[in-house]
Amino acid sequence: MTKNVMEAAVLNKPLDIEMKTIPIPVPKEDEALIRVHCIGVCGSDVHYYEHGRIGRYVVEQPIILGHELAGEVVQVGASVSNIAVGDRVAVEPGVTCGRCEACKSGRYNLCPDVVFMATPPVDGAWAEYVAVRSDFLFKLPDAMTYEQGALLEPLSVGLHAMNRARVTPSDRILVTGLGPIGLLAVQAAQMFGVSEIYATDVVPFRQELAKEMGVTHVIDPLHEDVTQRIHELTEGRGITVVIESSGNASALSNAVKTVNRGGRIVLVGLSASSEVPLDVNAIVDGELDVLGLFRYANTYPAAIQALSRSNIDIEKVITHKYPLSETKAAVEAARTQKDSAIKVMIYPGQ
Amino acid sequence: MTKNVMEAAVLNKPLDIEMKTIPIPVPKEDEALIRVHCIGVCGSDVHYYEHGRIGRYVVEQPIILGHELAGEVVQVGASVSNIAVGDRVAVEPGVTCGRCEACKSGRYNLCPDVVFMATPPVDGAWAEYVAVRSDFLFKLPDAMTYEQGALLEPLSVGLHAMNRARVTPSDRILVTGLGPIGLLAVQAAQMFGVSEIYATDVVPFRQELAKEMGVTHVIDPLHEDVTQRIHELTEGRGITVVIESSGNASALSNAVKTVNRGGRIVLVGLSASSEVPLDVNAIVDGELDVLGLFRYANTYPAAIQALSRSNIDIEKVITHKYPLSETKAAVEAARTQKDSAIKVMIYPGQ
Amino acid sequence: MTKNVMEAAVLNKPLDIEMKTIPIPVPKEDEALIRVHCIGVCGSDVHYYEHGRIGRYVVEQPIILGHELAGEVVQVGASVSNIAVGDRVAVEPGVTCGRCEACKSGRYNLCPDVVFMATPPVDGAWAEYVAVRSDFLFKLPDAMTYEQGALLEPLSVGLHAMNRARVTPSDRILVTGLGPIGLLAVQAAQMFGVSEIYATDVVPFRQELAKEMGVTHVIDPLHEDVTQRIHELTEGRGITVVIESSGNASALSNAVKTVNRGGRIVLVGLSASSEVPLDVNAIVDGELDVLGLFRYANTYPAAIQALSRSNIDIEKVITHKYPLSETKAAVEAARTQKDSAIKVMIYPGQ
Amino acid sequence: MTKNVMEAAVLNKPLDIEMKTIPIPVPKEDEALIRVHCIGVCGSDVHYYEHGRIGRYVVEQPIILGHELAGEVVQVGASVSNIAVGDRVAVEPGVTCGRCEACKSGRYNLCPDVVFMATPPVDGAWAEYVAVRSDFLFKLPDAMTYEQGALLEPLSVGLHAMNRARVTPSDRILVTGLGPIGLLAVQAAQMFGVSEIYATDVVPFRQELAKEMGVTHVIDPLHEDVTQRIHELTEGRGITVVIESSGNASALSNAVKTVNRGGRIVLVGLSASSEVPLDVNAIVDGELDVLGLFRYANTYPAAIQALSRSNIDIEKVITHKYPLSETKAAVEAARTQKDSAIKVMIYPGQ
Repeated sequence: MTKNVMEAAVLNKPLDIEMKTIPIPVPKEDEALIRVHCIGVCGSDVHYYEHGRIGRYVVEQPIILGHELAGEVVQVGASVSNIAVGDRVAVEPGVTCGRCEACKSGRYNLCPDVVFMATPPVDGAWAEYVAVRSDFLFKLPDAMTYEQGALLEPLSVGLHAMNRARVTPSDRILVTGLGPIGLLAVQAAQMFGVSEIYATDVVPFRQELAKEMGVTHVIDPLHEDVTQRIHELTEGRGITVVIESSGNASALSNAVKTVNRGGRIVLVGLSASSEVPLDVNAIVDGELDVLGLFRYANTYPAAIQALSRSNIDIEKVITHKYPLSETKAAVEAARTQKDSAIKVMIYPGQ
Repeated sequence: MTKNVMEAAVLNKPLDIEMKTIPIPVPKEDEALIRVHCIGVCGSDVHYYEHGRIGRYVVEQPIILGHELAGEVVQVGASVSNIAVGDRVAVEPGVTCGRCEACKSGRYNLCPDVVFMATPPVDGAWAEYVAVRSDFLFKLPDAMTYEQGALLEPLSVGLHAMNRARVTPSDRILVTGLGPIGLLAVQAAQMFGVSEIYATDVVPFRQELAKEMGVTHVIDPLHEDVTQRIHELTEGRGITVVIESSGNASALSNAVKTVNRGGRIVLVGLSASSEVPLDVNAIVDGELDVLGLFRYANTYPAAIQALSRSNIDIEKVITHKYPLSETKAAVEAARTQKDSAIKVMIYPGQ
Repeated sequence: MTKNVMEAAVLNKPLDIEMKTIPIPVPKEDEALIRVHCIGVCGSDVHYYEHGRIGRYVVEQPIILGHELAGEVVQVGASVSNIAVGDRVAVEPGVTCGRCEACKSGRYNLCPDVVFMATPPVDGAWAEYVAVRSDFLFKLPDAMTYEQGALLEPLSVGLHAMNRARVTPSDRILVTGLGPIGLLAVQAAQMFGVSEIYATDVVPFRQELAKEMGVTHVIDPLHEDVTQRIHELTEGRGITVVIESSGNASALSNAVKTVNRGGRIVLVGLSASSEVPLDVNAIVDGELDVLGLFRYANTYPAAIQALSRSNIDIEKVITHKYPLSETKAAVEAARTQKDSAIKVMIYPGQ
Repeated sequence: MTKNVMEAAVLNKPLDIEMKTIPIPVPKEDEALIRVHCIGVCGSDVHYYEHGRIGRYVVEQPIILGHELAGEVVQVGASVSNIAVGDRVAVEPGVTCGRCEACKSGRYNLCPDVVFMATPPVDGAWAEYVAVRSDFLFKLPDAMTYEQGALLEPLSVGLHAMNRARVTPSDRILVTGLGPIGLLAVQAAQMFGVSEIYATDVVPFRQELAKEMGVTHVIDPLHEDVTQRIHELTEGRGITVVIESSGNASALSNAVKTVNRGGRIVLVGLSASSEVPLDVNAIVDGELDVLGLFRYANTYPAAIQALSRSNIDIEKVITHKYPLSETKAAVEAARTQKDSAIKVMIYPGQ
């Protein structure tokens, strides 16, 4: 590295993203420096951009957002051995302590001391370079693109949902909400061998994309009775798992009524309203599992293994591409074109 | 059997229980005839007595209630081999089809064709005799009383809750609501080796009984902040499992906030209100499992095995005893003395 | 049914199969009569044909063999409602009691009272018709052939192996032995989303077939060091699950040494020798799961659901076809052409 | 700490233990210095003492043995916050990397980079002081003794066996071999609520101790047919889980035949012979789980929680006590008095 500074997109305060020249981070002994090739815009990035906070996380000082990325290793710390300079890698953006009860029991996504990119006050990677602890870097096989590597992050949410719901090929799944998380959950279900995947969304563009990505049938909840349609489409066999990724109160409320007895509902989407009225007696009577989902754990190796050999095309979710210098435009696209902008990708490496 | 008729307590319509003389049932080839020794009054019995219905189940013709029972085998059908005349048995009151997907996959409590005692229009066993398919009869060892045998039914709900929540001795449990189901869930937790069991209830009699039955600490939610007290009592380690058996909306609502991240909440109690506002974002952020529970499955053999060798005294929940002829008084006691009548037991055999 | 008699292939004693005309079975109230379209020859059929016994099961009187079948419903008993005359169905050949602890806990394959086709003294279905309890009949969608329906039986062994080993897409699997069970286990793994599947066999025909059926790489254990090759092929990541379907002592012995620490080994194949020397310290040190597998449970609905929508071509295992009248030739083909005869199919319906 | 040196028992070579004065270790930033109060003699310590190696681990230079310990915190590194000077703590003796796939997935006992006390070339703690990373130190409540704290290590093996076998109160357990691991597995089973625990051993002293510690019945395999006795004692219900802690080939071989179909066998004891002949067809036919067990993970917090509130008296296994200066005598007692020396405890703190 002869260069000492880099360009980065900094959110100064809500709606104010500024390109700045800042020092390139110096990797610690157990870190590697990554030249970011591409990095997505997540719903949480848009939310921080717009509102300056998500729940207890508040943007109180300028912050670099972005946490869905892949890039090239350009420098490694002295103790790094799992990857080498020149490797193309996907980055898992939350660095955990490895020492708490959550970490030791395999649920490191619940580590209270996690340092997660783009979660105030931790910087993300809408920048040319980022330093990451090497055990959260995963080498991409030649058959995988950087874009696929970056998309492993939102795909991991879908994969974790499959693990939480203990999905097997015997399940019939309903995905409610076809934003990037919902669409990638559809593909996660396919990766788990599920052959019947239903989905709901009101936006025609998303409905079409879902069909291209392998959904068995898309239902429009504004014009169709979801429970009734599911009954017809499955010939009375019903749905065994719902992946609720809309954050919509009525979608969740209906999920409880639509799923089969003994079924599982995974809550992926955060809800706009803090309290959602739920028919708890339906949960009791149906002996349902309602399962919250927070990020993901242990998903990257499996995802790389599966994607590098399958014909599942997760890149279909990428609808917009911008250079790093146009980060503000990228975020605005994600914010204002919700119907057609599924996944907006930023390219610092170009 | 020289006798052909028996006494039974028949609910003609809400609030109207009448003693009638009716034919003794004739056991089918795969059934046994049981002389009922004792049989409990369940909350559902009281509800049918008072309101004539529970949800979709409606009392449309006279019905015999009661489904928590033990008795003596007095006659067996031709193909019965697992029990014999003279055996003392506990009765599991739901007879399932054994052929549907639910039954075949081990969740027979979700069998759509179950014939469950005292669920309209199926008769229960507030009577001198009852005929039951023999695979739902479980021989009591000498060390167990008929009362314990009858209590296996409500205890099974607690045991099933432990199974649903995958409880091990590493869990710290909060039981909300100390009616018979809650108190027996406390003992189910002890049977699973749990050493820290907290509970909430507002009734002093129940609080005292819970302490006698092994609860580590009882919290009064009217006078104490449950979340705060749990934090203090566990020295910050918190609760990993909540057994919600109060059916109280605020208890459930609080459960979501009180349980540790990664925790499990089992919904045992039916709620008075059909829709309960829940902080779903807390379920997501905490990656909680909210698990409905419908009756139980595969609990009787384990319960008999454990209870016949332990010093857990489940009979402590029995607070009132009546002969069959006073069934109406028994039900009235359960209905009107909710603070002190935990489990009312009826004795047809006396 | 105007016809009262049918043709059946009867094994009188070892090596003696005779075509006989016998009465068509009359379905009981809860049974259906199936006109058998096609039915496979299983390794167990060949073993009974050759040796007259498998372990404790001995052919002591003439028996009809065959238990891998699909056909058309031609008559139903009075209480049958899940299928109708004219339906094309796959037959699950073991009828269980539904009442024992094994059945009630979801492991009905361990039912001590199972009545399993072609297991002495129970007749199988190398015949024109067979009567089966209707809950073990599964309607085939139009997209599935009778051959696929018949193959659900050996495929179920593979699917059950996946369930036993809790396989997810993160696993890397080694299948040892590429007979019909091994080859169908390969496809079961694909149905579970597994993308890296290695296999061993010494027979070139089987090796080629395995590659056509999607195996990532086939290793010849006579000419290659399996452990070393696995290490190379997986770039040091190793195997997480072994499906041992060869029944070969050295294959099993090697499995213990080849699988990763924390790995699982499923024993599918019965061994020729009753005692196999195993390095138990390797099981301890690697904290392995060595999991026996007996038949299967709850696999048919999932298999039909998955196969009717996938491009997995299980019919590739069918190498030979015979009419019912040539059953003896069919069994001889399976017995003597082990290298090239993978699955021999008999067609009573033609 | 004004003192700079301490006494330690050093194994120079097989059979040669020498007391030496060596520097007190200086705790790193994330470590604490523990004054060892008591520390057990493990079978592995005896084996290194006698043979100088266990499998691939070889004593090539002088080493301090011992890894079952509790003591008092006398100094903490700068970043330590979970414990403080003066705390009484149990020490979990294997420090894991927290970053590999095994660690991240909750099976840190399989971490390839673990640094485990008293496993060559890593020193153990037969010494006055030892420095340990603070996340492997667990504060003892006032109700627990140092001896109990030290015994958490071998008890953890039993608890991990319960977790591996998914034990619940419905299980009936057979423990084969009543050395310290077997006896503590008996108590682990009790902690999991198991009420029927059978055991086998040939030594009268151990048989008596087992009865005092709560075993339902002890069988002498030299004079009784274990399978037959189990059948009688359980009235035909049989055993669902075997904990094989004898390392004896015939005990393991019998386990496969004795356990119920669908049962689980946990292999705890290392075997003297590297290859044990096993009836693999019995594993297949019974659909058994044969589960290796390597050390333990996530057991200390649960054990402390349970033991500090129970009346389970694990200290009963301590049969001999020695000061640190007599370490050689302690090890010789463990080596030569196998029938009566269950757990030998060394007290550096006296």
